[in-house]
Amino acid sequence: MSEGEKVYLEDLSVGQRFESAPVELTAEAIKAFAAQFDPQPFHLDEGAAEGSFFRGLAASGWHVAGLTMRMLVDGTLPIASGLIGAEVEVAWPRPTRPGDVLRAVVTIEAIHPSRSKPDRGFVTVRTETLNQNDEPAQVMTSKMLVLRRP
Amino acid sequence: MSEGEKVYLEDLSVGQRFESAPVELTAEAIKAFAAQFDPQPFHLDEGAAEGSFFRGLAASGWHVAGLTMRMLVDGTLPIASGLIGAEVEVAWPRPTRPGDVLRAVVTIEAIHPSRSKPDRGFVTVRTETLNQNDEPAQVMTSKMLVLRRP
Repeated sequence: MSEGEKVYLEDLSVGQRFESAPVELTAEAIKAFAAQFDPQPFHLDEGAAEGSFFRGLAASGWHVAGLTMRMLVDGTLPIASGLIGAEVEVAWPRPTRPGDVLRAVVTIEAIHPSRSKPDRGFVTVRTETLNQNDEPAQVMTSKMLVLRRP
Repeated sequence: MSEGEKVYLEDLSVGQRFESAPVELTAEAIKAFAAQFDPQPFHLDEGAAEGSFFRGLAASGWHVAGLTMRMLVDGTLPIASGLIGAEVEVAWPRPTRPGDVLRAVVTIEAIHPSRSKPDRGFVTVRTETLNQNDEPAQVMTSKMLVLRRP
């Protein structure tokens, strides 16, 4: 695909891959997200986090999910009709720490044209959010609605 | 349970329910979240949203997920060791709109003591995020790590 091109259902194929630019996560951003959506000590304060299950400050999983969504929206997965998720499965195999550099690696896993609505289909998308050591910080499988070219 | 009491693995039982206070979602909050994590036209701008799949401004699903997490952390699910999710399944059966009033209804679905680590277990938690019409805006099943009383 050329830069900036938007894709429709018929442009996708199983096995197709997309990769985002890297994004560094700061302690400040971890705490700011947590203060709004997940105010638990291990996401808010280095000292409190030391004695917690995480043994150090860790990002909320929902923060990693939000950052991953932002990476997908910022041109990584350029679906013309938008990124519309019907349902997702998300796992966080390891903590994400201040200074970690994340990137999203997306694979098209399955494509199911709708039987009742010929203008659309459902696409199963696997998104691995890898850190700077190529370890998965988050693994997500999404069922997304994708429209055909009008 | 009395107000403010924290629970451990042995205090939970299958079928137990918890319910949050209601939270109203504003157009301003929808757009602010979207600008940061999900900048798609149907989450950012009423006019652009009118012509979209959503036919009007709708909250990012990740925003609904973040709000739900906040409701759980704010005393709805008072697990002493914290709310630590290993993996989740999330579905968004309908759009969430400006002015919708959401609340989380939590049900303990299963409890599995760890075989290898006697201090903990995994608890399957179902969280329905209902709107003011008692319709589910989000349905989430989480596998959470819960510690026993020390």
